[in-house]
Amino acid sequence: MGFTAIDLIEKKRDGGRLSEEAIDWLISAYTDGSIPDYQMAAMTMAIFFQGLDEDELTAWTAAMLDSGDTMSFDQIAAPKVDKHSTGGVGDKISIPLAPLVAACGIAIPMVSGRALGHTGGTLDKLESIPGFTAELDEVRFDQILEKHGLVIAAASETVVPADRKLYALRDATGTVPSIPLIASSIMSKKLAEGLEGLVLDVKTGSGAFIPDLARARQLAETMVTIGESHEVSTVALLTAMDQPLGIEVGNANEIKESVAVLRGEGPRDVTELTLALGEVMLELAGVEGGRDLLDETIVTGRALQKLIDVTEAHGGNGAAVEDPTLLPSAEHIETVAAPRSGYVSRCDAHTVGITATRLGAGRERKGEDVDHSVGITLQAKVGSRVEKGDTLALVHHNSHEKWESHREALAAAWVISDEAPPETPLIIERIDASTI
Amino acid sequence: MGFTAIDLIEKKRDGGRLSEEAIDWLISAYTDGSIPDYQMAAMTMAIFFQGLDEDELTAWTAAMLDSGDTMSFDQIAAPKVDKHSTGGVGDKISIPLAPLVAACGIAIPMVSGRALGHTGGTLDKLESIPGFTAELDEVRFDQILEKHGLVIAAASETVVPADRKLYALRDATGTVPSIPLIASSIMSKKLAEGLEGLVLDVKTGSGAFIPDLARARQLAETMVTIGESHEVSTVALLTAMDQPLGIEVGNANEIKESVAVLRGEGPRDVTELTLALGEVMLELAGVEGGRDLLDETIVTGRALQKLIDVTEAHGGNGAAVEDPTLLPSAEHIETVAAPRSGYVSRCDAHTVGITATRLGAGRERKGEDVDHSVGITLQAKVGSRVEKGDTLALVHHNSHEKWESHREALAAAWVISDEAPPETPLIIERIDASTI
Repeated sequence: MGFTAIDLIEKKRDGGRLSEEAIDWLISAYTDGSIPDYQMAAMTMAIFFQGLDEDELTAWTAAMLDSGDTMSFDQIAAPKVDKHSTGGVGDKISIPLAPLVAACGIAIPMVSGRALGHTGGTLDKLESIPGFTAELDEVRFDQILEKHGLVIAAASETVVPADRKLYALRDATGTVPSIPLIASSIMSKKLAEGLEGLVLDVKTGSGAFIPDLARARQLAETMVTIGESHEVSTVALLTAMDQPLGIEVGNANEIKESVAVLRGEGPRDVTELTLALGEVMLELAGVEGGRDLLDETIVTGRALQKLIDVTEAHGGNGAAVEDPTLLPSAEHIETVAAPRSGYVSRCDAHTVGITATRLGAGRERKGEDVDHSVGITLQAKVGSRVEKGDTLALVHHNSHEKWESHREALAAAWVISDEAPPETPLIIERIDASTI
Repeated sequence: MGFTAIDLIEKKRDGGRLSEEAIDWLISAYTDGSIPDYQMAAMTMAIFFQGLDEDELTAWTAAMLDSGDTMSFDQIAAPKVDKHSTGGVGDKISIPLAPLVAACGIAIPMVSGRALGHTGGTLDKLESIPGFTAELDEVRFDQILEKHGLVIAAASETVVPADRKLYALRDATGTVPSIPLIASSIMSKKLAEGLEGLVLDVKTGSGAFIPDLARARQLAETMVTIGESHEVSTVALLTAMDQPLGIEVGNANEIKESVAVLRGEGPRDVTELTLALGEVMLELAGVEGGRDLLDETIVTGRALQKLIDVTEAHGGNGAAVEDPTLLPSAEHIETVAAPRSGYVSRCDAHTVGITATRLGAGRERKGEDVDHSVGITLQAKVGSRVEKGDTLALVHHNSHEKWESHREALAAAWVISDEAPPETPLIIERIDASTI
């Protein structure tokens, strides 16, 4: 076809449009190593500035998808629907949501991620259940999905290899925060799951990967557009991530809170978001019943039983799901006290997330180990009335040294004001094909 | 100092300013290989979009300069002044200009380049003189300069190594046409010559590296600013490069024309530009006499004698300067005939340049050999009245096959109209510290 990387870089640099054939060639030649990193680095920086239009995005995502294996679950009659979140602090929603929806008859081949930076990872949280492994081979993945309608595992090396390579390059060259590149990275991995429907939880606010609402909306719209162009019904909810979601941050901590949600005893915000995303998944799957079905699935214990069954299928101890005292716990508990009386007007998600990471709950670099037992339990979220000296949070840690070096920073996460702050919605907006 | 490439890339990407320390670190770490090509590729693309401000440019150029050796000619009492052209078709100006000005008492340690793409190179042209070599070691370079006040040689590997590495990367990643990067690349090499003054011939028009006048002006202003901030008096002339300069294009061809200029018999445009640039060099050197001195230096034969002497110092046959029949000549001469009568309204420099290159006068890739004997002699330039069948050009070539495959393209360089075209100036504008 006679493409050259330099011609395509110059075209994009000058605001031109790359053809589908050019994009196919580019992604495939980059994946096989015939285009060097330095040319792709220049291309992604040019895309950072010039963007990709709808046709380019569709082609880019398809080319990424074509770089590796895709899954296909034709043997499973149930509708396949998954959920993805752009990530936030205390965002354990997948853990109660997936078994709840699977218990309603939807199949969920969920490929998920690990903690990085200030946010936790679903797989690390699940692996705080003794014995649970998220690293499955293809055969075991399919077996668990077929038997339970739900599997939650790490991505296989053979799925979207272009994204692995490209993401590592973007991470080293300042081109991560490009809406089309983020959208195609996320969507290529989700489209590889062979879904009929996908719900996206796109976070916005100070603890989100993309704090700005307008940019988060643009990302949501871009991902919905990609999903629809690949014939996957896609709905995004734009949700607030200014303060942590729920009251627990950490790995074992978040499993406890997830179980509470499946017992009908979860904090209001986590429960609300779980049910809202669950309703969309039922809608996308064409399953009738809506919120009533979800409530009933919780009340009858079928949702919790699904989590226990899937945990055991992953090699985990199902008893630890029912009895949180069997989960790892930290050696020490400290408190953060309110420095004055008033109303909590801010509880900064980023600060709480970074502190949890540094105490060991997360990782700053890929490949580091995480400590499943450490975490933070919030006792005062935005809107709470507190008196001076009241406990704002419990901190579960295993190192006085680490705790001492972060306690001041963590305390600064709370702002206490004289006036109660205005209430702000958790779910800001729904974006789907009809709203774009 | 704790800089990281990724932080600096992100800063520039978002329109921030890089500190002098950051730029020093970046250029030095890139030159020594501790910053990989892919990070520098992202950085240069970010600079393409976000630019460099005046302080950044000064620091960037200084850091490039510091990456290698710089020359110093304190032992030479004469003022050191050089000339640089951004390059064009038929642009042999350095060859008559340098000996003319050197014969007026100015020292010129000229580091020059070779043919690439559609433009020729001063060194290739000079090497069409039998025996002439432009590759000199440092000792020989200094000896020739001290004895003759003029040396014209290829850059040493040890001068501005950062530019060698960075230019090769930019060439492969679509970041060549960035004004600050072009300006700092050119100026770092010229500032390494230890000059007191520099005149820049910045070309604009269809045969120029930067065709657009506004951008060419921006480049000129940027280079003048860099020169002045490094305490080198710098003047730029913006000059037209829509049609080739002079009537000869090729290596031996252009030596002939250069000699004609030094005999006072050169074409009007080449002579005019040589004298205009020469006047600026005298002014920068503080040498009195202006155009009269230049005219006298030609008329008395001192300018031509300087070229002969320097040619011999470079190992070349001085007799071939006086007698052009001793220069290499091509086996075949063909003609391009006017397809109709009228006025030449266009004689496209880029087309003429590409044809000469493909006949062998230039090179499309670095390291290729050039054929010194081939070239094009224009017999009708813009404004000429021609009758159908008149010769527009003589083509000197050594391959019927090559000629046949380019004759049609070359013929299309001329546009013949019923009306005489308006006269346009060769020297468009002077840019110096007082005009910016």
